[in-house]
Amino acid sequence: MAVLHNDIFLRALLKQPVEYTPVWLMRQAGRYLPEYRATRSKAGSFLNLCHDTQLATEVTLQPLERFKLDAAILFSDILTVPDAMGLGLHFVEGEGPKFVHPLRHEDDVSRLRVPAMDKLRYVFEAVKSIRQALNGRVPLIGFSGSPFTLACYMVEGSGSRDFRYLKTMMYSRSELLHQILTINAETVTQYLNEQIAAGAQAVQIFDTWGGILSDACFAEFDLPYLQQVISGLIREAQGRQVPVVVFTKGGGLWLEKLVQSGADALGTDWTINLQQARQRVGHKVALQGNMDPFTLFGSKERIYDDVKRLLADYGHGSGHVFNLGHGINQYTDPEQIKYMVDTVHHLSVAYHSN
Amino acid sequence: MAVLHNDIFLRALLKQPVEYTPVWLMRQAGRYLPEYRATRSKAGSFLNLCHDTQLATEVTLQPLERFKLDAAILFSDILTVPDAMGLGLHFVEGEGPKFVHPLRHEDDVSRLRVPAMDKLRYVFEAVKSIRQALNGRVPLIGFSGSPFTLACYMVEGSGSRDFRYLKTMMYSRSELLHQILTINAETVTQYLNEQIAAGAQAVQIFDTWGGILSDACFAEFDLPYLQQVISGLIREAQGRQVPVVVFTKGGGLWLEKLVQSGADALGTDWTINLQQARQRVGHKVALQGNMDPFTLFGSKERIYDDVKRLLADYGHGSGHVFNLGHGINQYTDPEQIKYMVDTVHHLSVAYHSN
Repeated sequence: MAVLHNDIFLRALLKQPVEYTPVWLMRQAGRYLPEYRATRSKAGSFLNLCHDTQLATEVTLQPLERFKLDAAILFSDILTVPDAMGLGLHFVEGEGPKFVHPLRHEDDVSRLRVPAMDKLRYVFEAVKSIRQALNGRVPLIGFSGSPFTLACYMVEGSGSRDFRYLKTMMYSRSELLHQILTINAETVTQYLNEQIAAGAQAVQIFDTWGGILSDACFAEFDLPYLQQVISGLIREAQGRQVPVVVFTKGGGLWLEKLVQSGADALGTDWTINLQQARQRVGHKVALQGNMDPFTLFGSKERIYDDVKRLLADYGHGSGHVFNLGHGINQYTDPEQIKYMVDTVHHLSVAYHSN
Repeated sequence: MAVLHNDIFLRALLKQPVEYTPVWLMRQAGRYLPEYRATRSKAGSFLNLCHDTQLATEVTLQPLERFKLDAAILFSDILTVPDAMGLGLHFVEGEGPKFVHPLRHEDDVSRLRVPAMDKLRYVFEAVKSIRQALNGRVPLIGFSGSPFTLACYMVEGSGSRDFRYLKTMMYSRSELLHQILTINAETVTQYLNEQIAAGAQAVQIFDTWGGILSDACFAEFDLPYLQQVISGLIREAQGRQVPVVVFTKGGGLWLEKLVQSGADALGTDWTINLQQARQRVGHKVALQGNMDPFTLFGSKERIYDDVKRLLADYGHGSGHVFNLGHGINQYTDPEQIKYMVDTVHHLSVAYHSN
């Protein structure tokens, strides 16, 4: 493997000294880029793009050609996991992902198994190929959905506004949901460890739907399974620590609980003030985030002011990875992103001087 | 006006001693009730139902016949206000509310005015009629959307997953959004004062979309307009204080800021732990909430346990109004609601003994 030229992202996640605040963006390889749309069209479908090692590598590197990002993230989807479990993933244009076989009844749940990792080999091949293509330029982030977020899709069979089926199971047959979550946690652990073995230098667990839970249900159905996954992860590879980021969207009220997940860093959405977040988590974890993706629809002055405010909110010292509070919107102008990334690098130097 | 027989809801909002914890439910007059569906079908459309004084009175009282609720809430919709402003409200089956003339451009905004309250007379007539029909049984709650939440619908032209148009205006032409919010705040103030004059004994401001904002934008685009409205409200009528409740869905991180709105009570969704919420707001406001509406899809044991936990979380003394953390889901079994309401009354007595 090539020597890592820019390890600032990994150092920031571990709160080691850095020269500036690193930045990457959730969904940085995506539809807002014309070159992504071209490759996507070549692939024929989103799933083909995930399955094709060469094309997945291509789109992963596209944003790095445009912006001075400090990390690359594997191009894939969190739903590859339930797909490997046999739930039958497909995408309906304009409606998002659907599963042919959602888990609604006891019978569905009793048939669920940890899938053979061989079914996800194409993901690990993509990790290897991207690492090679990156050639030490920046670190590669692997990822998975959280056990709970995967369960949301698996029970509901799609995205949802209210997650009625999931919540009905949660409140009426909680033992079935726990059974799913136990299998998901074991699967996610193996899945992330295989990504790390293939070359992922950090991993992020996307807990996209954790925020739909009540305070009590978060403690019962989400946090313990995050802990189970993280405690089973390989935390060192090729002589370096492999940092773990957990991002619970809408989880701002539970930062203290999320610290107990065992993660090195917590992702934050834009509803949280970073100064308060830092006070609440203390020295225990780094923070990632948290600009509203729609700020990029504003004027350059607004972007500048928001970058400045977010950096000031976090304040002096290492432990902040700049990011959006959610994925980039598909209608974002790439020029605005370039301006934002450069502004983060430029303005953040002052927060890391001695 | 008839003497108020059950004023426990009003006393709880003002943190005066009560014998048990009062309970009402957001969207308690609604589609989950077969008798509501019958009246709705007689009316022909949802808007007709809002416009017809007699039918609006009928549906407002329906849940009180089934459950021992401690308050009634005016049957209406927060979108009556932008409709009166000339935006052209209509409902598309299965898609929710839409406006024919959303506010997208400077010209749209410059034409916006505080509407003549006469256009909302049907709402005030409904308030009078319901007060008469209640005959002092329980207090009547009037309500409005918050200036910000109304602006979300007015700019977007409908509900939205990401509020792209609203946020684009917020980040690129903030002065236009401030202009809308200023007009909305004046309108909401007049609207609620007319409801109070017509007989509303408490008012609730639904800030349904406040939670989509960043911490900084909540402080700039939402809170000041809540303050403007509340400072302009008539706070006493017929010799009694008229309590004001603000419910910012997803606003759990901002409770301390919301205390500064001037409200007597804050609504809370189910993501907030009530014990922590009470510690954070201190003696300044009462709290309303916050059971996940889908708990009602669970077993009776689960409902019992959740009621017990929520009452224990708030703890001893007045200042808690039991409610859901969001409107009742349309598929809820009314029997479950009855059980919940009775359980709240039964178990809460212990928290109000001397």
